[in-house]
Amino acid sequence: MLLLQFMKIFRLFFLCYCFTLSLNTLSQSDEEVLKKIYKTSLTNGQSYNWLNYLSNQIGSRLSGSYGAEKAVTWTKEELEKLGLDKVWLQPVMVPKWIRGAKEYGYIESGSGKTSIVNICALGGSVATPSLGLKASVLEVKSFEELAILGAEKVAGKIVFYNRPMQPDLIHTFEAYGGCVNQRYKGAVEAAKYGAVGVIVRSMNLRLDDLPHTGAMTYDDLPVSQRIPSAAISTNDAELLSAMLKLDKSIMFYFKQNCKQLKDVLSYNVIGQITGSEFPNEYMLVGGHLDSWDLGDGSHDDGAGVVQSMEVLRLLKEIGIKPKRSIRVVLFMNEENGLRGGNKYAEMSKKNNEKHVFALESDSGGFTPRGFSFDCDDASFNQVLQWKPLFKPYLIHYFEKGYGGADIGPLKSDAMVLAGLRPDSQRYFDHHHASNDTFDAVNKRELELGAATMTSLIYLFDKYGVNPISNLETIKN
Amino acid sequence: MLLLQFMKIFRLFFLCYCFTLSLNTLSQSDEEVLKKIYKTSLTNGQSYNWLNYLSNQIGSRLSGSYGAEKAVTWTKEELEKLGLDKVWLQPVMVPKWIRGAKEYGYIESGSGKTSIVNICALGGSVATPSLGLKASVLEVKSFEELAILGAEKVAGKIVFYNRPMQPDLIHTFEAYGGCVNQRYKGAVEAAKYGAVGVIVRSMNLRLDDLPHTGAMTYDDLPVSQRIPSAAISTNDAELLSAMLKLDKSIMFYFKQNCKQLKDVLSYNVIGQITGSEFPNEYMLVGGHLDSWDLGDGSHDDGAGVVQSMEVLRLLKEIGIKPKRSIRVVLFMNEENGLRGGNKYAEMSKKNNEKHVFALESDSGGFTPRGFSFDCDDASFNQVLQWKPLFKPYLIHYFEKGYGGADIGPLKSDAMVLAGLRPDSQRYFDHHHASNDTFDAVNKRELELGAATMTSLIYLFDKYGVNPISNLETIKN
Repeated sequence: MLLLQFMKIFRLFFLCYCFTLSLNTLSQSDEEVLKKIYKTSLTNGQSYNWLNYLSNQIGSRLSGSYGAEKAVTWTKEELEKLGLDKVWLQPVMVPKWIRGAKEYGYIESGSGKTSIVNICALGGSVATPSLGLKASVLEVKSFEELAILGAEKVAGKIVFYNRPMQPDLIHTFEAYGGCVNQRYKGAVEAAKYGAVGVIVRSMNLRLDDLPHTGAMTYDDLPVSQRIPSAAISTNDAELLSAMLKLDKSIMFYFKQNCKQLKDVLSYNVIGQITGSEFPNEYMLVGGHLDSWDLGDGSHDDGAGVVQSMEVLRLLKEIGIKPKRSIRVVLFMNEENGLRGGNKYAEMSKKNNEKHVFALESDSGGFTPRGFSFDCDDASFNQVLQWKPLFKPYLIHYFEKGYGGADIGPLKSDAMVLAGLRPDSQRYFDHHHASNDTFDAVNKRELELGAATMTSLIYLFDKYGVNPISNLETIKN
Repeated sequence: MLLLQFMKIFRLFFLCYCFTLSLNTLSQSDEEVLKKIYKTSLTNGQSYNWLNYLSNQIGSRLSGSYGAEKAVTWTKEELEKLGLDKVWLQPVMVPKWIRGAKEYGYIESGSGKTSIVNICALGGSVATPSLGLKASVLEVKSFEELAILGAEKVAGKIVFYNRPMQPDLIHTFEAYGGCVNQRYKGAVEAAKYGAVGVIVRSMNLRLDDLPHTGAMTYDDLPVSQRIPSAAISTNDAELLSAMLKLDKSIMFYFKQNCKQLKDVLSYNVIGQITGSEFPNEYMLVGGHLDSWDLGDGSHDDGAGVVQSMEVLRLLKEIGIKPKRSIRVVLFMNEENGLRGGNKYAEMSKKNNEKHVFALESDSGGFTPRGFSFDCDDASFNQVLQWKPLFKPYLIHYFEKGYGGADIGPLKSDAMVLAGLRPDSQRYFDHHHASNDTFDAVNKRELELGAATMTSLIYLFDKYGVNPISNLETIKN
């Protein structure tokens, strides 16, 4: 019995040893492969050209729009040119919301003087009455503050959510996370107390004149109780707040004629290199093809789309034949519904597909700093062994954390989800605003991101996922 | 004897132990101090406002220009407002080169058709004849290639240096280092073989229309043999090269009326917080106040100037009273002479000042990634102990390397030189060109840099420099 246990333990150690050995003997070659990946991306990359076309020839791609439709057709064609083993469209019904005419808003002081402000309807919002909506304004910083004020103070007013993003958080996505409930749930909360409209400070760390849109919800609020909801630029939020401090009786006027139409048919765009050894194990890399309508969605998420396409192109160009099947998935409707992500996971489950790894790029096309990994400790420890390979490329951030919205529905204990983490300092200057445009993306930064993603996919494919668990499986 | 040696060793270990202990017990407090430094810089910083004034109210600051003079006066005034212990100007004679009228250049094809190109004189170049200079063009990629061609092929021609920056180098400063000899020494080398002018591909990784200036030298070439030298935009370098491939007989025309005037008096601007325990040990933080004349020098080196000023302001605002004297030095004439850096070192030597640490920020105002350290191993090992304190701020790059041009002349075995290392991917898009302007600097990125510099200064002041050597000193 003791001998048997000893042998089991010995075998485990031996397998670990062999694994480490193979890692060491191959490490030279891994270094070379990564060097080739980065060099090819930086000297002969396609991601920036693709982004140029997607941003400047197609433009914004809100779900259900003509732009989204064109983006589906064009990315499918581009993937087909790569000579992948399979390229197809996965149908998915998506919501269609349209902004209508440009929104208009102003602050009216006690003396009747008006100051025009920069606003935009939040995605999913209802319109104002056709002549617009004018009411006095109640500024709050949180839902708690709103609840304390209650119906007596709120009813008949426009609620102005003005909690800024916290500037001393180094990860700007944390600052976003700490504020975005005002945008997403602000209307529902304000409607509870009889508010007639909602104005939300843009999710932007910078003081400027651009309103930032983004998704909002009415939950199960009856249509008759839905109140219009708009974002205001940070400069104008400061102005409104300052004017309110001087005179609580000032009025706010805004007019928007956005509309939610019926769901329409759209698609996830999928391309695949079929694995040579384990064709039924899938590794996914993706971003979302839809964007908001104000800019051209170059950072959110044009960058993620072209980087994901580039991963498969680089593998082919360098001549890497993956053991597992590698799929690029360009998800539709991340911004206002996540229908594409949900549909992909649903179909994957239905078809009994085994996904072992999924990587999303949806944090902008800035200089890559690393990845966050959503997985168990064993897998994470495996990943950490690869970290030194990335040091020459200044990739240093390997932490446990969030993978991405679109790949989230795939999550299972048996797989690793990962998110590319680019430098985040400038991201919210552009996020969901009219300046999310091609000129804000730097070619080298975009290409470094594509190379970093390709390198991780290469390593996961070569060594498999979660070797400790695998070894345990072999042992038993 | 053995006992004595043992006691010496024991004492050394004991001191090391005490040092480690003090480091551990104080580490909590260091974390808190760094948190406060970053928070203050990001929520209540002054660096961005200063840069706004320097860039948009003063503008470019080429040595000897009115802008440089204004910058000296204004930064001195701003430092005086901080309530430092001492603020003064250090006189230094600087070269004065003026660009004159905007340069003009074109390519003339065999058929006489002209294509206007974007050029600018290199700093220090002589003018062309007043009616301009027209000659046929010889493209080379290196001085070696030029030497092989020799006088027979070169004489009477304009030499066109067209070796691009290497795009697969991750550190863009390495790519710059691999090319900049074309700009700096190109005229001297070409003049050897009888060339009549020099056109240099701009030091820019991106293809665009902006020419990038920068320093060049004639070494000891007699005035009569000096040939005019200009930079051409990367797009126009590609055009010229493509046209030469089709027809070697095309001509290049350019006209510039730049001029080297007599040296003029200028100043390094210096401010000091005098140390409470070791007032005669100096820690320097600085950048260079001069800039090229095409943009407003926001990245090069407005960023370094305001970040260095911010270091002293942050220390005061947070209430840190340094043990050693901390000096901010805003060096004059880094770009075309290094007179300020040389003067400071000369005066420091003359006054027998003991500098223990010098930190320069002169690599742009982008997201800081870390530092390079020019010092001995013992000091570097000490610095590495502080690295974990920077992890929450995504500062990961602590490597041995170059400090900075202005602090270079101070170098001695007894001190540590360090350079801030920001993300370098976008730097050469702006370097020495008309788009090195305020809008290209991101507020948060600039502030993160200032906080990172302040944190390092704080740690060096608190723990001293090179403790192993210090311990050895105590021991003996």
